[in-house]
Amino acid sequence: MTWIDIPEHSPFGPDTLPLGVFRTGDEEPRVGAAIGDQLIDLAPVASAQMLDGAQWFAEPTLNGFLALGRPAWQATREWLLDLVRNEAQRDAVEPHLIPLSAVTMQLPFEVADYVDFYASEQHASNLGRLFRPDSEPLLPNWKHLPVGYHGRAGTIVASGTEIVRPSGQRKPPDAAAPDFGPSRRLDIEVELGYVVGRPSTLGRPVPVDAFEEHVYGVVLVNDWSARDLQAWEYVPLGPFLGKSFATSISPWVVSLDALRDAAIPLGPQDPPVLPYLAGDRLTVHDITFEVRLNGQLVSTPKYKELYWSPAQMVAHMTVNGATLRTGDLFASGTVSGPGPDERGSFIELSWGGREPLTVNGEQRTFLEDGDEVTITGWAQTSSGQRIGLGEVTGRITPAVG
Amino acid sequence: MTWIDIPEHSPFGPDTLPLGVFRTGDEEPRVGAAIGDQLIDLAPVASAQMLDGAQWFAEPTLNGFLALGRPAWQATREWLLDLVRNEAQRDAVEPHLIPLSAVTMQLPFEVADYVDFYASEQHASNLGRLFRPDSEPLLPNWKHLPVGYHGRAGTIVASGTEIVRPSGQRKPPDAAAPDFGPSRRLDIEVELGYVVGRPSTLGRPVPVDAFEEHVYGVVLVNDWSARDLQAWEYVPLGPFLGKSFATSISPWVVSLDALRDAAIPLGPQDPPVLPYLAGDRLTVHDITFEVRLNGQLVSTPKYKELYWSPAQMVAHMTVNGATLRTGDLFASGTVSGPGPDERGSFIELSWGGREPLTVNGEQRTFLEDGDEVTITGWAQTSSGQRIGLGEVTGRITPAVG
Repeated sequence: MTWIDIPEHSPFGPDTLPLGVFRTGDEEPRVGAAIGDQLIDLAPVASAQMLDGAQWFAEPTLNGFLALGRPAWQATREWLLDLVRNEAQRDAVEPHLIPLSAVTMQLPFEVADYVDFYASEQHASNLGRLFRPDSEPLLPNWKHLPVGYHGRAGTIVASGTEIVRPSGQRKPPDAAAPDFGPSRRLDIEVELGYVVGRPSTLGRPVPVDAFEEHVYGVVLVNDWSARDLQAWEYVPLGPFLGKSFATSISPWVVSLDALRDAAIPLGPQDPPVLPYLAGDRLTVHDITFEVRLNGQLVSTPKYKELYWSPAQMVAHMTVNGATLRTGDLFASGTVSGPGPDERGSFIELSWGGREPLTVNGEQRTFLEDGDEVTITGWAQTSSGQRIGLGEVTGRITPAVG
Repeated sequence: MTWIDIPEHSPFGPDTLPLGVFRTGDEEPRVGAAIGDQLIDLAPVASAQMLDGAQWFAEPTLNGFLALGRPAWQATREWLLDLVRNEAQRDAVEPHLIPLSAVTMQLPFEVADYVDFYASEQHASNLGRLFRPDSEPLLPNWKHLPVGYHGRAGTIVASGTEIVRPSGQRKPPDAAAPDFGPSRRLDIEVELGYVVGRPSTLGRPVPVDAFEEHVYGVVLVNDWSARDLQAWEYVPLGPFLGKSFATSISPWVVSLDALRDAAIPLGPQDPPVLPYLAGDRLTVHDITFEVRLNGQLVSTPKYKELYWSPAQMVAHMTVNGATLRTGDLFASGTVSGPGPDERGSFIELSWGGREPLTVNGEQRTFLEDGDEVTITGWAQTSSGQRIGLGEVTGRITPAVG
């Protein structure tokens, strides 16, 4: 399938070809495509072959490329597939292969707006039980619309960025007033993020079937969360400082085209959704995540059970006329399955801290200083092929004194 | 005080000198400073006088200038004051005066993150009574921290942009399920917005007394709100589509230096705030807003009664290590005073739609298609001088069918 050597178990086979932004030494960051344990330095190859839009690969973000839209994305993918499949391209490409071990990956795109949804029924139910134990776990609106909110775009960071433990106001239910200090309930959220390329027009909703015209691809997201800060602050306007200190994303953006054979029909929605959210070809990707704490596998959330399709998220997010912009990132919300080992956050895995996990022989609930969390993920095609999404990782450093 | 003619009742006297981005004919947008009913086209004047940073005035946004930080902002202000006060500058400046009537004003800066606070006690109490009639109007966290949330940066629009009535899910309390259609409770929110210039460092909180190092100045904000969409969607993650369709800001950014003599001590806070929010020189500006619906004055909210100081908002927003970026906009939240004619939204002015206002002889509650809302504001100095903030205006157009 390709003339490039690909190590066994590499996440990036010859059909994946994710795009990212890398830096080597003192050179300016620019765009690469990963294959196996190497990347293709795209700017010189595209420039030599006079590819339309080649100049965007010399940029320090993917935004210029993302703005080009689907026809250009598909033409670029065809070109990339030819580079790696066609032995005749070896002489043109080989001088521009760089080992991944020799580069530093950057944030792949400049984030415009960041929206976080809440689209896993199991996660929303679990959090409802934990945060509002005396009420129905799902609120009345949850099955009528994909609930979501805006997060802080300015603190989306590249995988590998150290996460400083946030401080803030914490008020246990039995305390009379809040105190201040480092979060004691620092957590993760395992999510899939969608990267918007083509913008939309103010005042014009984007229908469900226009999803692929606007969305380029996906990244892995770890939406770090300070549960104690969040629990105290979140009424009535939603999460703020409990989330805004950092959100990590994977460096490689995998295109929807690469994931095409891993799309499966969305599960049933009952009650039926309103017409602007309806579609007869709604899908979700068959993705499995693996969550490791300090190297030990602690959870394997499954994406295919998501209640809301990403096409419905876009239709909902724009139905009031709000625009999409190049670089918008919207994420699924935490992905949790029904099994106890399929939950996408430690507040769920440890059931509010009351049922510790055993990790490397220790009893663990929330994150401690020095902990490293790594999320990997892959999509599975109907033929059983795995398409890797790479990883997003981060280590906790102590609160600033 | 100046050799430039300033019409009586002009909002922009010789000490205000707000900055904005204007366009004339087919020329590229660039930076101007308003005085009276004219503006100074700053790029050619600054360039001829070899002002440090002159190149930023030729840009289509203020972001480059904003990033320079306080010493540059102050030096620029001294230079501007000399231009308008010093008769010897007349020959240099006069050829670059342009009537405001001959230009189109643009969005003055590219918005990074947009945060909306909720800092008026009267407004938060009024909305609590209207949205949660069976509970205490203020939630337990409200006096311990400045409650806020992230809004959509991509739909912040320049004053004068037409506002398309948003559609979305609406569920009256007595309906079994939501329906879909144009908002029936379209509203305004009168706010003051703060424009961040100098960025901060990830993981490093900005203390209350560093406020002026990071914040350049203020704009008027109208945070358009669809109350029916908001009421149904906002639990548990906060407002989303009820707000994200549009937020209008005034075109002229007035610097904190211009407002220095209009700052007054913040009112008492009880219970006492945590140390990271405390300061012995916390202030708020003595600003009066005027809200006009189709030309008729309907409300005059007063800013000086705000519960939280903007310096506390910055300290809170960054205490978890979140960064400030150039172009961040954070707004006060709706400003309402205790008087019935001092409320900053129609849901308050009409008490949930139950007590209509008489406007131009008609009974009115929420906004109708064709309505035009204009908010003006001025700050009052200790010597009684008025410093105008200009205006933010917008007209409602019918929902897209």
